[in-house]
Amino acid sequence: MKVMVDLCIIPLGVGVSLSPYIAACKPILDQAGLNWELHAYGTIIEGEWDAVFKAIKACHETIHAMGAPRITTTLKVGTRTDREQSMTDKVTSVQHKW
Amino acid sequence: MKVMVDLCIIPLGVGVSLSPYIAACKPILDQAGLNWELHAYGTIIEGEWDAVFKAIKACHETIHAMGAPRITTTLKVGTRTDREQSMTDKVTSVQHKW
Amino acid sequence: MKVMVDLCIIPLGVGVSLSPYIAACKPILDQAGLNWELHAYGTIIEGEWDAVFKAIKACHETIHAMGAPRITTTLKVGTRTDREQSMTDKVTSVQHKW
Amino acid sequence: MKVMVDLCIIPLGVGVSLSPYIAACKPILDQAGLNWELHAYGTIIEGEWDAVFKAIKACHETIHAMGAPRITTTLKVGTRTDREQSMTDKVTSVQHKW
Repeated sequence: MKVMVDLCIIPLGVGVSLSPYIAACKPILDQAGLNWELHAYGTIIEGEWDAVFKAIKACHETIHAMGAPRITTTLKVGTRTDREQSMTDKVTSVQHKW
Repeated sequence: MKVMVDLCIIPLGVGVSLSPYIAACKPILDQAGLNWELHAYGTIIEGEWDAVFKAIKACHETIHAMGAPRITTTLKVGTRTDREQSMTDKVTSVQHKW
Repeated sequence: MKVMVDLCIIPLGVGVSLSPYIAACKPILDQAGLNWELHAYGTIIEGEWDAVFKAIKACHETIHAMGAPRITTTLKVGTRTDREQSMTDKVTSVQHKW
Repeated sequence: MKVMVDLCIIPLGVGVSLSPYIAACKPILDQAGLNWELHAYGTIIEGEWDAVFKAIKACHETIHAMGAPRITTTLKVGTRTDREQSMTDKVTSVQHKW
């Protein structure tokens, strides 16, 4: 089952500058061979369900290992059985109706 | 790694009455041996990371099998290494400050 | 327009204990005359759109005034024109299908 | 108070093709003079709190008027008092740590 996820990880107890923790997720996503794209309030990831959620778990583990005692993450998770739709497809599908 | 999740599954393409699909997740959570609690805009689930996300995947698969061609889910996912905190702890922790 | 909101406010830069900040929202919701219910990963609020979002803005302002330099909030926002549905209705609607 | 929002509007009861409804929000955001940027799982909007939430309310009203009997929206809402930070700042702040 393919999934598209919007991942927003918020480490708590480490002050207000979260970008070093977010940046530490990049090699995890890359090594998992996932397609992903950063935006201003999260990261869109697409891939097989198990691979995507294994990577998200590794992000939590890595950020805890960096010293964050608590993490709260918001995810949007999309699956569909009717057809495949990539990140780019979703954006252009809206733009064609503007 | 223990996790607390707030799960809100939205099947698309099946009209506006979503409760039969949400109800179909109950046996999945029960058979996984997870603690969970329904609220008006989702379900709080607590347990080990792998067991919780395996159950969420099974919810998506079940709801697709029931005929929903598309699902969009919103999750909040909390982990912490400083201490254990149950659903009840979190609620009473706020209530004690009222 | 009536709205049901699931509000989860996360103050950043104030350590890992967030409950004093969450508790400070209670009088705001009460004074606004809104129905609300705390759960383990947020607060469900129901009322008129403008009243609900005015209260949420006041929560952000209050938590900043308490010393939090940064806040990230996750909201689920439901509106419907087909019928009225309360917090209790939504829960029992699922429970009747178990 | 400035706010950055990640807006993901899901109309229910209108089938699986949501892009016409999402596209109808573009003129609302433009006429409100807000900065915004579409991504694959939502739209990032930045501006003054009242202007942003007035626009989001107008999106719900417009989508209901287009025939959607029910809408569920997921929002991430960020405010900060320590400094201003644009959509672009947030992305480059992470990219500089890669």
